[in-house]
Amino acid sequence: MDKIRFGGDYNPEQWPEDVWDQDMALFEEASVDTLTVNVFAWATLQPDEHTYDFAVLDRILEKLAAAGKTVCLATSTAAHPAWMARAYPDVTRVDFDGRRHVFGQRHNSCPNSPAYRRFSAELARRIAERYGRADNPASGIVVAWHVNNEYGGTCYCEHCAAAFRVWLRARYGSLSALNEAWNTAFWSHTFYAWDEVVPPNALSEHGGGPDVTAFQGITLDYLRFNSDSLLRNFIDEKSAIREFSPDLPVTTNFMGMYRPLDYFRWAPHLDFVSWDNYPPDMQSHARMALTHDLMRGLKGGRPFWLMEQTPSQTACRAFNPVKRPGVMRLWSYQAVAHGADAVLFFQMRQSRGASEKEHGAVITHGGRSDTRVFREVAGLGEELEALAGEIVGARTYAKVALVFDWDSWWAVEISDGPSRHVSYQQTLIAYYRALYERNVAVDVVPTGADLAGYDVVVAPLLHVIQGDLAARVEAFVEGGGTFVTSFLSGRVDESDNAFGMDAPGPLARVLGIRIDETDALAPEDLNAVVFDGGAVRFAANLVFDLLQPGTAEVVGVYESDFYAGTAAVTRNVVVGEGGSGDAWYVGTNLDAGGLGWLFDRVLGDRGLLNAYSGLPGVEAVTRHRDDVAYLFLLNHGDVAADVVAETDGVSLLTRTPVRAGEHLTLAPKDVLILRSRTC
Amino acid sequence: MDKIRFGGDYNPEQWPEDVWDQDMALFEEASVDTLTVNVFAWATLQPDEHTYDFAVLDRILEKLAAAGKTVCLATSTAAHPAWMARAYPDVTRVDFDGRRHVFGQRHNSCPNSPAYRRFSAELARRIAERYGRADNPASGIVVAWHVNNEYGGTCYCEHCAAAFRVWLRARYGSLSALNEAWNTAFWSHTFYAWDEVVPPNALSEHGGGPDVTAFQGITLDYLRFNSDSLLRNFIDEKSAIREFSPDLPVTTNFMGMYRPLDYFRWAPHLDFVSWDNYPPDMQSHARMALTHDLMRGLKGGRPFWLMEQTPSQTACRAFNPVKRPGVMRLWSYQAVAHGADAVLFFQMRQSRGASEKEHGAVITHGGRSDTRVFREVAGLGEELEALAGEIVGARTYAKVALVFDWDSWWAVEISDGPSRHVSYQQTLIAYYRALYERNVAVDVVPTGADLAGYDVVVAPLLHVIQGDLAARVEAFVEGGGTFVTSFLSGRVDESDNAFGMDAPGPLARVLGIRIDETDALAPEDLNAVVFDGGAVRFAANLVFDLLQPGTAEVVGVYESDFYAGTAAVTRNVVVGEGGSGDAWYVGTNLDAGGLGWLFDRVLGDRGLLNAYSGLPGVEAVTRHRDDVAYLFLLNHGDVAADVVAETDGVSLLTRTPVRAGEHLTLAPKDVLILRSRTC
Amino acid sequence: MDKIRFGGDYNPEQWPEDVWDQDMALFEEASVDTLTVNVFAWATLQPDEHTYDFAVLDRILEKLAAAGKTVCLATSTAAHPAWMARAYPDVTRVDFDGRRHVFGQRHNSCPNSPAYRRFSAELARRIAERYGRADNPASGIVVAWHVNNEYGGTCYCEHCAAAFRVWLRARYGSLSALNEAWNTAFWSHTFYAWDEVVPPNALSEHGGGPDVTAFQGITLDYLRFNSDSLLRNFIDEKSAIREFSPDLPVTTNFMGMYRPLDYFRWAPHLDFVSWDNYPPDMQSHARMALTHDLMRGLKGGRPFWLMEQTPSQTACRAFNPVKRPGVMRLWSYQAVAHGADAVLFFQMRQSRGASEKEHGAVITHGGRSDTRVFREVAGLGEELEALAGEIVGARTYAKVALVFDWDSWWAVEISDGPSRHVSYQQTLIAYYRALYERNVAVDVVPTGADLAGYDVVVAPLLHVIQGDLAARVEAFVEGGGTFVTSFLSGRVDESDNAFGMDAPGPLARVLGIRIDETDALAPEDLNAVVFDGGAVRFAANLVFDLLQPGTAEVVGVYESDFYAGTAAVTRNVVVGEGGSGDAWYVGTNLDAGGLGWLFDRVLGDRGLLNAYSGLPGVEAVTRHRDDVAYLFLLNHGDVAADVVAETDGVSLLTRTPVRAGEHLTLAPKDVLILRSRTC
Repeated sequence: MDKIRFGGDYNPEQWPEDVWDQDMALFEEASVDTLTVNVFAWATLQPDEHTYDFAVLDRILEKLAAAGKTVCLATSTAAHPAWMARAYPDVTRVDFDGRRHVFGQRHNSCPNSPAYRRFSAELARRIAERYGRADNPASGIVVAWHVNNEYGGTCYCEHCAAAFRVWLRARYGSLSALNEAWNTAFWSHTFYAWDEVVPPNALSEHGGGPDVTAFQGITLDYLRFNSDSLLRNFIDEKSAIREFSPDLPVTTNFMGMYRPLDYFRWAPHLDFVSWDNYPPDMQSHARMALTHDLMRGLKGGRPFWLMEQTPSQTACRAFNPVKRPGVMRLWSYQAVAHGADAVLFFQMRQSRGASEKEHGAVITHGGRSDTRVFREVAGLGEELEALAGEIVGARTYAKVALVFDWDSWWAVEISDGPSRHVSYQQTLIAYYRALYERNVAVDVVPTGADLAGYDVVVAPLLHVIQGDLAARVEAFVEGGGTFVTSFLSGRVDESDNAFGMDAPGPLARVLGIRIDETDALAPEDLNAVVFDGGAVRFAANLVFDLLQPGTAEVVGVYESDFYAGTAAVTRNVVVGEGGSGDAWYVGTNLDAGGLGWLFDRVLGDRGLLNAYSGLPGVEAVTRHRDDVAYLFLLNHGDVAADVVAETDGVSLLTRTPVRAGEHLTLAPKDVLILRSRTC
Repeated sequence: MDKIRFGGDYNPEQWPEDVWDQDMALFEEASVDTLTVNVFAWATLQPDEHTYDFAVLDRILEKLAAAGKTVCLATSTAAHPAWMARAYPDVTRVDFDGRRHVFGQRHNSCPNSPAYRRFSAELARRIAERYGRADNPASGIVVAWHVNNEYGGTCYCEHCAAAFRVWLRARYGSLSALNEAWNTAFWSHTFYAWDEVVPPNALSEHGGGPDVTAFQGITLDYLRFNSDSLLRNFIDEKSAIREFSPDLPVTTNFMGMYRPLDYFRWAPHLDFVSWDNYPPDMQSHARMALTHDLMRGLKGGRPFWLMEQTPSQTACRAFNPVKRPGVMRLWSYQAVAHGADAVLFFQMRQSRGASEKEHGAVITHGGRSDTRVFREVAGLGEELEALAGEIVGARTYAKVALVFDWDSWWAVEISDGPSRHVSYQQTLIAYYRALYERNVAVDVVPTGADLAGYDVVVAPLLHVIQGDLAARVEAFVEGGGTFVTSFLSGRVDESDNAFGMDAPGPLARVLGIRIDETDALAPEDLNAVVFDGGAVRFAANLVFDLLQPGTAEVVGVYESDFYAGTAAVTRNVVVGEGGSGDAWYVGTNLDAGGLGWLFDRVLGDRGLLNAYSGLPGVEAVTRHRDDVAYLFLLNHGDVAADVVAETDGVSLLTRTPVRAGEHLTLAPKDVLILRSRTC
Repeated sequence: MDKIRFGGDYNPEQWPEDVWDQDMALFEEASVDTLTVNVFAWATLQPDEHTYDFAVLDRILEKLAAAGKTVCLATSTAAHPAWMARAYPDVTRVDFDGRRHVFGQRHNSCPNSPAYRRFSAELARRIAERYGRADNPASGIVVAWHVNNEYGGTCYCEHCAAAFRVWLRARYGSLSALNEAWNTAFWSHTFYAWDEVVPPNALSEHGGGPDVTAFQGITLDYLRFNSDSLLRNFIDEKSAIREFSPDLPVTTNFMGMYRPLDYFRWAPHLDFVSWDNYPPDMQSHARMALTHDLMRGLKGGRPFWLMEQTPSQTACRAFNPVKRPGVMRLWSYQAVAHGADAVLFFQMRQSRGASEKEHGAVITHGGRSDTRVFREVAGLGEELEALAGEIVGARTYAKVALVFDWDSWWAVEISDGPSRHVSYQQTLIAYYRALYERNVAVDVVPTGADLAGYDVVVAPLLHVIQGDLAARVEAFVEGGGTFVTSFLSGRVDESDNAFGMDAPGPLARVLGIRIDETDALAPEDLNAVVFDGGAVRFAANLVFDLLQPGTAEVVGVYESDFYAGTAAVTRNVVVGEGGSGDAWYVGTNLDAGGLGWLFDRVLGDRGLLNAYSGLPGVEAVTRHRDDVAYLFLLNHGDVAADVVAETDGVSLLTRTPVRAGEHLTLAPKDVLILRSRTC
């Protein structure tokens, strides 16, 4: 489809069929073209172990086909039926506290339960068989497979324990390798038989919650294993689908920066990435931008689908604000600007009862089309329809990469010491925000990415160094690149063991420093970093590396405490065959101003600042297709912004021509898309 | 007994019999006439499965009979014996987390345990047989049966699961009706067999505590079922008592606004209501007044017993202040003013050991009669004795009704969205307080009450609309009444399903409004409502309905946010056959000033304000018996109050005549009872 | 050894043997002489139920012997091997929530598990057999046995339940005595068979955490039983060791003020006391001093070992500051000043992986000797070596005793009412701090101690009065002593039952007061106590006894509330045969200023104030050996202090002579040791 898809999750099985016709009319009114259906219908599709019944789904698809809609068809496996939990009690999960659950909620299946694996694959197979074939009337409208839904959570049952041991055998080969990796000489933990290994939870290694473990190595491996277990569920279903549907793309909806699943390990198995955007508050522009970039980065820059967002409010929070006027449209275009080729909502019609009854919907309980929310949705639908032929498939080009690493995320947050107040996500957002506010395009990449094409690589909290990462960073800098990293980087190997060398371990050489101590204070205990010989100072807190600069120059020093005047931020210039690169180290949790100062210098040195850098409240993002550039200007602020066009082009939403140098006014929450030629 | 009963819980089995004689002397000194005994003596009464032993209880009753006291005789079934927990492990409860408890504490029996049901009924039967018969020397002094004690808590065991299924069959008849009621099409929850239903707790539907459920319908039904299960325990015992004691009234002590039990469903089964008053702090006058009115309302206005209050301090709080001088007397008269015909304490003599050892008592460990607390108790006893022939049986007449609805309480607080910060109890107290501060008599009524006799019906958070409620509200307003309701009213049916219509659902017509959105913000994010074209403004928070006034007039508008200037408070005038009524809607959580402004207008329009409306710190409440009115003036404040008598009469506590127009001075914490003739 | 031992925990089994040689060189450089080894090596020593393997330990000891070190040899029983948890699932603990744990963490063995008791004693036996014999090359270097490690925690399994019943039979003899002690007439708790008793936890008596119990008597006994169970584990091992090692001293490392274990019951079984000092923050000087005094007091004043402290930072806190320059040395000397004859660290080399990877170490991952921390350690090592022949074995002489009572600690903190905000530990620290800031030597003693030798006995929160304690207090005061006690003293007997008399029960006579009420308010609700007729006032909070002074004089009165002007602090002068003593009562939680005022008077009356009383930031402590006095002056402050020498002597660390009257300057964090002759 050569337009941005528009629509969302549609669960008509919750209300009488006479309502469906009203829905079709309202879809038409809102220019909706794509519906995700069959997300939670397992109990209807399979009323018992031996019976499958597709009658309702047939009717839904027939109705949608008749209305000319396309469908993202889900497999319904994210919540098993009640009969299954009764017949196979081991299909439910055992939680972190060791409690076997019974039937309830959703995302409730043990990923290693034989029953779940068998039944979920079989259901996916039968759905694919029925709707992936040409002779089903609905087949033609299915444009993508949506496996399961928001995979997540963790199980600690005996099936998982057994599967964990198999996973460990594959990873380590021998118990001696496992004992070495987990440093089991500590606290008398040597394992002499695989069966002695138990999942790390509140009944075994964890004395203070999921992040407080006696053995980081065990917990880190269980996090990897759990991510892999759920991934295997996805692969089970995808394989079953492929038996009957060889070509249609298969996805599952991710949840952005979701700690339990290492999406970089998942992404190769998806045909395209899709995700659900539910930011925690109304001030999350940078966070959402980072997450879009991460989702785009999962498959090396390919466009993704925004599979879910709420038209207005959520229901699961302690309080659920409505999206202010214009915000839904603004955020939708932000997704498109960062690489989305679909803008879909949860939910099309508001649930009648249960926990999503108050969740926002395109069509609320009253069924009206004259509400503010419906009007905004219909307005966006109309705009996207008018954009047909544009944008879809366009790519992003960035000279800056941000390294995102689930292993480091896990390792930093399960570490005992130096500080439990360090948040991987908040730190990554803080660094990203400094780039975002300068309107510099960013690719989010895994540790294994090829860094060669970038000018600047930013890798905060690069805690775990595994494989040839350190060597590749060195080669990048020697090749002329700029590398920026932070406190708590270079601390542990893939098993969370310290390196038998000075911190920051394998990164020490490229950074030209040595760290003897890392002080950690209460969040409210502030120090400051002084730059430029005292000209500027910025607050810092949480952790404070006591640095011994070797070859590195001291860029910023601590202002107070017994280490006042010693190095806090350093820069090591490395002259290699490929040019002169540099490697920056930030030894403390610098505030936003400090990171801004830093990136003004780093990006300035590289000539990466641009006309929109620092324009308050306005986000500027570009997508490229062939020789066409689409510049999205998004005014997140509460005041109008004055923006000067840099090139001739067309303002796409208004279809008006724009001249280079022309002043454009962007109302609060408004969006401008400037299409121009790049050659 | 034609006097206010005075006494309390007496557990002499905890100390040697030689202390009992000291107790009798102290009771005499304090004018005590009524003792509640045998509340927690099951283990003594039944030392094993086959043996009953009433020797100690015989002696206690003989002692009391000899001292001329009357007795409220309890059945001792609120804590089972240790032997029972060992012999019948299923007699203990399974908690919300799915954990089977073992012997300990009290209120520890599964209400659906066959053993508990059998043994508790049998114990009640034997007690009634022994002490309900004329030939037992103690029989003559028993004036009421006190079944169990403070029924409460919840069980989630297999017995309860089985009983829940039976309860559901009776409620729904068929699984298809149940699936429809619970909207099980959502999240693949369709039940194909009754046995698939499991109690909703942390192991099934609840992911975040007792109020966070995936399926509100299931949880709501389990709340009803649990209340009914405990009620059935009460009925078990009452039936057994009735085999031998056909006439003596039977009660159990309620706990005021206690969320787990729907006392309106319980009250028909009690012969009179009694309750235990333990306010959370020293500023709870309005809350206590509301609760007394609720207790009186449970049986349509009939007097109740104050079964327990502490003479001074509690022991179960994090800190336990003593009641300041005069406060125990003041609060005792507040209970009487609102309908109590008994003023009883927990506890008469302080427990020797265990968790109530530090709980206040009339007689403390030292056994003294010269302490402040004992002197205040004895002073009150003397006063109540002097009031013999007065007050007892007198009734309250109110033109204002407050609707109290357990179903709405549950439904509002288990809802996902819009806000978990809305407290049913706090909201009801806020509305009641506005009436209380204007010294307007209030009846607290259930949703099924006949509204015809009232001028004003106030129903905040009337979330659940079931049966013919909406029609009766319409009829009330059409008949000339004033109806006041609030945000989140009219939202769901009896199964917590949204109505397929605009909010506020079936109430929309009488209110003359439509709600398209409900914004919900953090508690500290304040908006304001502006009345009288800007003359006055009051803060509001939590939820903000975005109203479309239809036939309603706009009384107050929001001050800020994108809905500034739109309707926040509306009034719909309805002209019916019975006159011109009006229906008010308050779309946000208005502060105390705002509610005061509102009720000054509503009550003023109705001519319901009176001479005592707004007298700071002074509560004025009237009870009527035949043509006699007892006006209680209670000074809760810290300064003396000047009150003008409205009628001729007698100041009962001082036995002095009072003339209409006379200025009376009421010292801080002091009480005046003015008896006058009403015709 | 006639020097302060120096070294610490060394776990070389965690890294390759080639590192060991580097360690030996670094030990030499740091003047380390004593290593604690084999603390957590059970899995290595016993790879299965039938095999023991001492090869690694042999090599470690050989290496240390060759390097001329001495060894504190641990028994490795604080963490059982994984194979044991698999073969004997009942070796793991059942926690407070009733959950059976599986293998993980440490301190993970049920103390009453038959398997654990058998295997742990056998391991200790074999270690003693091997290394306690003269023909083992390592034997000569073992100077002490270190049983287990930091005994702690609680188990609630069936083995413990059975052992508890045995313990109860021994304590009470009969069920009737037990029922009487536990006041089981309350809440129908009468036990008719021993097997009906279950451990008090979340599944039985505890409704709100470990400190909220329905039956204080049961919980108090379980606390005693649990302490005794772990003590029996210690005795098991010590007895096994004694089979082969009749003479070497046996210890286990205590944890200071550790609530779960009554160290006064433990101490007689240890040959010397040792403990681990991990203060919660950097402002804990008084707390550490109190704890050192407590540890010294456990064995009647005999020197102890500081078995563990971190060289710099911990890892288990939410944030882990490094020790500031000089602080490690300062705190080490503080330990010595209060009676330590050893200064040992955890850990000598930093752990490679798992939860203590980031815990401070003498040798960090980089293995350097040029870090700040290593240099400070080596500097201290050099000083201690230079002090050889001094200090070791010296004793402390105090005229003031502080009573420390685990029974009162437990009873106060598990009490329902009057206040859960009263902390035994914080209150003891507050009273101790008043003495500490006046630089008055304090012995910390149990309730059973002989008080005769003291001038002043301070006993805050002496809640439990058992045995002849009250009589001994009376005799002490009648003998001329000064006794100081506080609110909530004298409240319960050994079973936590109230005395059938006025509070403060058996202490009432010596105190000359009676308490009718105890008010308890929120922590932020302040009152004040006014002394000297209004000349001074100090804040007070939490609890407020309403006192009736009998023979006592009123020293301080409440400033406000309805008891303003009534007694808050009293003093009862008692003239006995031995002179005129006095007994002080402090009826409320007085602030630091108020306690300071009080002790200025109490100590001043006794002539116990000295030249160093009140010197800000400087702690002055003396140890005596024969006729030599070692005066330690410790500057905890951030500014230099000026101290005047009182006697001629030698400044030991600088080896310079000092004259009486000489002004000495003490830099921040610096230490002075003045050796002088006392005759």
